[in-house]
Amino acid sequence: LNNRSARPLSELALLVGGEVVGDGSRLISGVNGLAEASPNEVSFYANSRYRKGLEVTRAGAVLVESEASVGRRDGMNWVRVKNARLAFAKIAKLFSPKPALGPGIRPGATIDPRAGVDPEAVVMSGATVQRGAKVGARTYLFPGVFLGEEAVVGADCVVYPNVTIRERCLVGSRVIIHSSCVIGSDGFGFAFDPEVPEHCKVPQMGIVRVEDDVEIGACTCVDRATTGETVIGRGTKIDNLVQVAHNVKIGPMTLICGQAGISGSAEIGSGVLLAGQVGVVGHIRIGDLARVGAQAGVAHDVEDGATVSGSPAIEHRQWLKNSAAFPQLATLLREVRQLRKEVERLKRQQR
Amino acid sequence: LNNRSARPLSELALLVGGEVVGDGSRLISGVNGLAEASPNEVSFYANSRYRKGLEVTRAGAVLVESEASVGRRDGMNWVRVKNARLAFAKIAKLFSPKPALGPGIRPGATIDPRAGVDPEAVVMSGATVQRGAKVGARTYLFPGVFLGEEAVVGADCVVYPNVTIRERCLVGSRVIIHSSCVIGSDGFGFAFDPEVPEHCKVPQMGIVRVEDDVEIGACTCVDRATTGETVIGRGTKIDNLVQVAHNVKIGPMTLICGQAGISGSAEIGSGVLLAGQVGVVGHIRIGDLARVGAQAGVAHDVEDGATVSGSPAIEHRQWLKNSAAFPQLATLLREVRQLRKEVERLKRQQR
Amino acid sequence: LNNRSARPLSELALLVGGEVVGDGSRLISGVNGLAEASPNEVSFYANSRYRKGLEVTRAGAVLVESEASVGRRDGMNWVRVKNARLAFAKIAKLFSPKPALGPGIRPGATIDPRAGVDPEAVVMSGATVQRGAKVGARTYLFPGVFLGEEAVVGADCVVYPNVTIRERCLVGSRVIIHSSCVIGSDGFGFAFDPEVPEHCKVPQMGIVRVEDDVEIGACTCVDRATTGETVIGRGTKIDNLVQVAHNVKIGPMTLICGQAGISGSAEIGSGVLLAGQVGVVGHIRIGDLARVGAQAGVAHDVEDGATVSGSPAIEHRQWLKNSAAFPQLATLLREVRQLRKEVERLKRQQR
Repeated sequence: LNNRSARPLSELALLVGGEVVGDGSRLISGVNGLAEASPNEVSFYANSRYRKGLEVTRAGAVLVESEASVGRRDGMNWVRVKNARLAFAKIAKLFSPKPALGPGIRPGATIDPRAGVDPEAVVMSGATVQRGAKVGARTYLFPGVFLGEEAVVGADCVVYPNVTIRERCLVGSRVIIHSSCVIGSDGFGFAFDPEVPEHCKVPQMGIVRVEDDVEIGACTCVDRATTGETVIGRGTKIDNLVQVAHNVKIGPMTLICGQAGISGSAEIGSGVLLAGQVGVVGHIRIGDLARVGAQAGVAHDVEDGATVSGSPAIEHRQWLKNSAAFPQLATLLREVRQLRKEVERLKRQQR
Repeated sequence: LNNRSARPLSELALLVGGEVVGDGSRLISGVNGLAEASPNEVSFYANSRYRKGLEVTRAGAVLVESEASVGRRDGMNWVRVKNARLAFAKIAKLFSPKPALGPGIRPGATIDPRAGVDPEAVVMSGATVQRGAKVGARTYLFPGVFLGEEAVVGADCVVYPNVTIRERCLVGSRVIIHSSCVIGSDGFGFAFDPEVPEHCKVPQMGIVRVEDDVEIGACTCVDRATTGETVIGRGTKIDNLVQVAHNVKIGPMTLICGQAGISGSAEIGSGVLLAGQVGVVGHIRIGDLARVGAQAGVAHDVEDGATVSGSPAIEHRQWLKNSAAFPQLATLLREVRQLRKEVERLKRQQR
Repeated sequence: LNNRSARPLSELALLVGGEVVGDGSRLISGVNGLAEASPNEVSFYANSRYRKGLEVTRAGAVLVESEASVGRRDGMNWVRVKNARLAFAKIAKLFSPKPALGPGIRPGATIDPRAGVDPEAVVMSGATVQRGAKVGARTYLFPGVFLGEEAVVGADCVVYPNVTIRERCLVGSRVIIHSSCVIGSDGFGFAFDPEVPEHCKVPQMGIVRVEDDVEIGACTCVDRATTGETVIGRGTKIDNLVQVAHNVKIGPMTLICGQAGISGSAEIGSGVLLAGQVGVVGHIRIGDLARVGAQAGVAHDVEDGATVSGSPAIEHRQWLKNSAAFPQLATLLREVRQLRKEVERLKRQQR
């Protein structure tokens, strides 16, 4: 029995709390996008941009949030759900193929005899596990992964090729780390010594702690703490090319988009959204459930639930209004100069 | 006969459609910058910043666009061409040394027996080619390269150290991929499930397709599509540390400079230029031949041939004018307050 | 005698030119943060944010800049110093553990017989040293490090996992290079050939020269010069995810923060500070001791000692004032329209 075994549509609808409109006995063996789905696959429709895809899809069934909004199509099967994208993700998970690789350490992996690799873990050729490091059950270490001394990776993790996890860092369970990501590089800490002169390195003695269910993108860098811990909270998801500096604390369930950067000792709450290319200065706090717009530069604390944009960041609606006015600034300048002249004339005439 | 065999200047001039002024029989065996060139090397002059270098160069000949503009120097040989930098590139290509490595799979490479590596390919130690993957003729895989299951790299490619190309991704021919680049990492897709609560991962089942003659920079990340393909069009060149999100389509012949980021499902036309640190939001289209200025944040469609700048991006000349006015904004604010007072006084006096 | 041998506090105070207030005979065997330090460790206090940590610390002694400002605590030992963070760094260095690994080339490393690896160097499994490359004494090459043909790394360096140093690049002594960093990737140089059409690659024939005592962050990319050298000056420190383009020259003792990007042929002076996410266009000069604020976009030369911010960057205080005025721009626009109406009315009445 593999994960591509077909299941009746009605069973899948039950799984996601949905209601079948059409043929509940239709056998489904996978998921796909509207454009790509075949008659034995389920797709979803959640965004009117994909209206056209919906009209021509060959999918065996489509997850929709409201049947009314999509119209009818003869012979099409629908599943009405509250959140079509979420339902799609859940069904996809059900069908997603498990890697076929059997457990064990492959030839060409370098495992220190004092390391602890669970017998159910998979360690591929070219991976390195140093002295005292631990790898949990069913965790995959791809080629080129480096696990430094006494570093720990929990169970059911996937660590993709060429990831570095430096000494003593702690990674929880069900964590996914994408290629070329670096966990535990030294924080950027120097003290200027005018007598040499030199930028004297402040040793970075702390660690990174990545909690359970985190996902970290490709080429993202998470620096170890100077002392203590840099923390990525439970269930937080980080995109590619993100910089997380030393001693940053990120709460649970936060989303950080590509190329954002968080400076040293900043604190990001739970359920926060940092959009792409955001910059956060050091030592400030971004409150729970706050949202920061793309390319914003956050220089001060952000309150719980607030939405900010711009560089320097201000309240989002304020930013929208003022950004919309910006293209009139040069004209405004000329107009004010003109007004000045006219007011001077009026003043002269009145005297 | 290696690539450093000397050729008469007249032969090189013919190759680039240029005209020799001076000694066409001068033997040339390579190219170099004005500052570094020796008497048996050709250099080029295309930018008045390098005037000084031109005056003191020891080059055996210099490619120039207009002899008049560079003055004469006794004993110096010139080649008049339409585009000096392009002519330089063509001649450099002629002389560029081919790597001396013979074909074959080196010891220490890990090749699955069900992979297909062309006998003319070079696979170095520490490279991994998984089950069903294919490597074309004369392609170089450097150490630490990972080629996932059923991934394909065409002929005459160079894949530098520590590059990851994930399962099923397709790379064309004559493609260059620089170190630590990641092709086919999972797109950043999650659906919030308030019942757990968690950010439920939306499986990323699609692939990346990189067409022929593409070059991709170091530490650049190209995410695989959720379903379908993320596409990098033929002849497009991407710089270092660029983020290309899932389902992005980039047309042919486009240039994307360092640290730019393109969000999910955005479409970039052909012959586009994105300057450094540009951000593009998801689901929009940047038209053919459009140009986007450095650090711009593009939030809406850009028309074919348009030039935009700023964050949020507006028409480039508009942005220039308004940016130039920005340093007077604080003064403007004071002036308007003063005008308000004076107008109020005038109104009172007139009553 | 290892580095954790305890030393009396008075000896450490002498080392950093400080004065003990309290028990100079207290034995100290390490350093740590205020929150983490135990009674046999020294900590430091240099920032009032950490006042609370100071009040509850269990540290055996605390380095302070002025005893008066921290108050007294019974039984607490202080060391008065001029720069507490610098003193901490110096003492930390004294106690920092040397890696326990003995010298030599480990099994699983790939060393060309024509390479020159110092017998005191440490080359770990999965590292590659190609023909003609040289590795200095006491230098560590971690797994996945690639050292290309004729590349040179000096003595006492640490090159972390999965770093690429391409052919002929030169790295000095006491240099630290973090994981996934790429030194010597091809510069982003193309000349458009309308006849094919194609972006014809301009061969990147130069190198990168990294001088002594440099530190380069994780996933940072330093491109090789087109011809000649890209240079990182002595003692300069570069953070993670920074882009340094071809032919850039960075002077000594400069600090470049995370995700900054420097375009081709730009020149950065000595003792400069580029904050996070800064962009610098090509061919300009940033003068010695200049400071550039976070997310700034520098499009023109910056004078020695100047401080600039904003995109496009202007003098810092100018930027502060005008940024503070920005949130009133929309209101200003409305006010000026209103003033216009009132001035028109006044003019009509006066006629």
